[in-house]
Amino acid sequence: MSLIVQKYGGSSLADIAKIKRVARRVAKVREQGEQVVVVVSAMGKTTDHLIEMAHRVSDQPDARELDRLLSTGEAISSTLLAMSLKKLGCPAISLSGAQAGIHTDSSYSRARILNIETGRIFREMSKGKVVIVAGFQGITRDMNIATLGRGGSDTTAVALAIGLKADMCQIYTDVEGIYTADPRLVPEAVKMEKVDYDEMLELASSGAKVMHARAVELGGIYGMPILVASSFSDRAGTIICREASFMENINKVRGIAHDTNVAKITVVRVPDQPGVAAAIFVPLAEAGISVDTIVQNASIENCTDLTFTVTRDDLPRAIEVTEKVTQRIGAERCVSAVGLAKISVVGTGMQSTPGYAAKMFRSMKDAEINIQMITTSEIKITCIISEGRVEDAVRVLHKEFGLARGE
Amino acid sequence: MSLIVQKYGGSSLADIAKIKRVARRVAKVREQGEQVVVVVSAMGKTTDHLIEMAHRVSDQPDARELDRLLSTGEAISSTLLAMSLKKLGCPAISLSGAQAGIHTDSSYSRARILNIETGRIFREMSKGKVVIVAGFQGITRDMNIATLGRGGSDTTAVALAIGLKADMCQIYTDVEGIYTADPRLVPEAVKMEKVDYDEMLELASSGAKVMHARAVELGGIYGMPILVASSFSDRAGTIICREASFMENINKVRGIAHDTNVAKITVVRVPDQPGVAAAIFVPLAEAGISVDTIVQNASIENCTDLTFTVTRDDLPRAIEVTEKVTQRIGAERCVSAVGLAKISVVGTGMQSTPGYAAKMFRSMKDAEINIQMITTSEIKITCIISEGRVEDAVRVLHKEFGLARGE
Repeated sequence: MSLIVQKYGGSSLADIAKIKRVARRVAKVREQGEQVVVVVSAMGKTTDHLIEMAHRVSDQPDARELDRLLSTGEAISSTLLAMSLKKLGCPAISLSGAQAGIHTDSSYSRARILNIETGRIFREMSKGKVVIVAGFQGITRDMNIATLGRGGSDTTAVALAIGLKADMCQIYTDVEGIYTADPRLVPEAVKMEKVDYDEMLELASSGAKVMHARAVELGGIYGMPILVASSFSDRAGTIICREASFMENINKVRGIAHDTNVAKITVVRVPDQPGVAAAIFVPLAEAGISVDTIVQNASIENCTDLTFTVTRDDLPRAIEVTEKVTQRIGAERCVSAVGLAKISVVGTGMQSTPGYAAKMFRSMKDAEINIQMITTSEIKITCIISEGRVEDAVRVLHKEFGLARGE
Repeated sequence: MSLIVQKYGGSSLADIAKIKRVARRVAKVREQGEQVVVVVSAMGKTTDHLIEMAHRVSDQPDARELDRLLSTGEAISSTLLAMSLKKLGCPAISLSGAQAGIHTDSSYSRARILNIETGRIFREMSKGKVVIVAGFQGITRDMNIATLGRGGSDTTAVALAIGLKADMCQIYTDVEGIYTADPRLVPEAVKMEKVDYDEMLELASSGAKVMHARAVELGGIYGMPILVASSFSDRAGTIICREASFMENINKVRGIAHDTNVAKITVVRVPDQPGVAAAIFVPLAEAGISVDTIVQNASIENCTDLTFTVTRDDLPRAIEVTEKVTQRIGAERCVSAVGLAKISVVGTGMQSTPGYAAKMFRSMKDAEINIQMITTSEIKITCIISEGRVEDAVRVLHKEFGLARGE
């Protein structure tokens, strides 16, 4: 008998009919003799609705209170799923993050799991029950509720799978797996059978919004196999596991990711001296603004231009912070631009093999797509381009790197 | 500096605007130098909505899961009120029943408070915070959430006031206090300044739905003064306290209560032998049906008729249970009736003074209101009458016992 941790997202639990559907799926797995622990997100748009209520009370809702408020979303979905399973004759019990022994630090709204006391879950399992755990939340040392941030239920599921020494973690969502590119843009995009943790991490952080990056990272550290599949079909999904591509797809680009939620800020003629980067990025971090791509050009006349990207939502606040810094460090000015997109080519196979970047840039040039910024990691090459050309770019690169089926 | 426990009901917290209004009231009391602990119910119809969702999942939702589900209602209202207070510059923190140290037994949906560990509340108060406690809920020894049943937030408030040795418990609701009769039926009904616990208990159990009976009982045992007042006005309410009427209103009827949610069942020709009452009422109790008035006539030919009342909602199940019992104990048959109402005259002053019952029956006769059943307690006389005559009866008795102002 194997032990599986299954996670169902908000779209899979959006209404009572969908909750009953998930209950039938879980009961079926159970009937096949598997032990199941289920992690749930809040139903549909519940979390958005709760955040909206909080913002009607206060423009800056207290972080501790907000986390306690948001945790009710998973309390509702988990209890309804437990009732639904019992109705089907399948013994079940729902547990809050605290009841499930999920201990976190006190960083409200972006807490980290410190450890999981698995005693209660194992006790309930030994009584033959399916255990349903409210995702996205845990309890601090001071007995306060803290949430893990958006997408945190993925992290709960992977962390629980590791803590319970499960055989697999299954993430059920509204897509059928990880594709070589967004299938809405590239009809010939192929669902991958397996993908490496690092590749998945780069795909996730580059705009493939299937799974929360922290969860993938955690899975990678402990080597927990993660299945990503649809809760609305029985088709095979994608398994994220160790060295998946090393064994199967050596020397190969694995996928094309893109993200259109991109704005850039350039600080012009920054004096080229130590501490300048810190002077810019520390205040941004303190303002809670996440900076993505950073590019600094080579120094000319002891001055350099420094460009970075942020999400569009963060742009107004990022400009405010950066303009103050610009004056203080004696840079010339700061300019911003929207209407941008990020496109990335990802694959561990690129790691030791030259020529991928060149191939990417050449095919962009042939398609007359202008590249505004470039960054590279060991397994990813990212270009910032005009938003209007992103669909073309995805299609061109998908073809160039031979990702369609049979190529 | 005195310590006050305030409880706000669902209608006082029905929307964001009303929550902000309550926050301003609490902040004002705080500014006057009082220490305040606030107990909240769920917002408006939240509890009904959650119950409805549960019943869409299962016709008999699991009791433990239902309690965890329902507890989210107070989590939402308590966190929003805390945010609202902080927005006003008033330090505040919300606590779940578990965080507030409210320990209950494991009787889900009708749990009893076993004890309150006040450590955390006092710690937060010593930091200068208004503590907001989610009403209606506590935690069992097994770390499960249990609710206290409908109106349980009143019990939470009174129990907390006792546990914290508060100076007073204030119950804020949508009525301005306790009246000598329902002011919608009797315009000249008078708001009482004070009322005794026992009188309040009889009024509450006889249909005056202002306050939960268990909370009044608890207040009476520990002598905790309870103010009942409106959260929508600043008018003085009614204080429930010890021997209020003994000192002020000796030998006087204090109020007229009525309830139209009444159905009756009569078991005809019950063999008059030991154990028959238990044979009828134990199965009803086990089915979770609350029996109100019970009348057994004098025995004729070793047979007796036994009549009791239940709420109308419970009638179909009560008939089902009683019919089985009727056969088993060899009674002739059981018959039921709806369209009934209960009317009660309440006052500790009646305790040692004869003539009140006679006066009540005579004025009913003069108004040609037929009495179907009669029961009496030390401080209450209750008649079951036709529902159609209940308004007349309230008016007649209110006048007969001189309850209008100035009489």
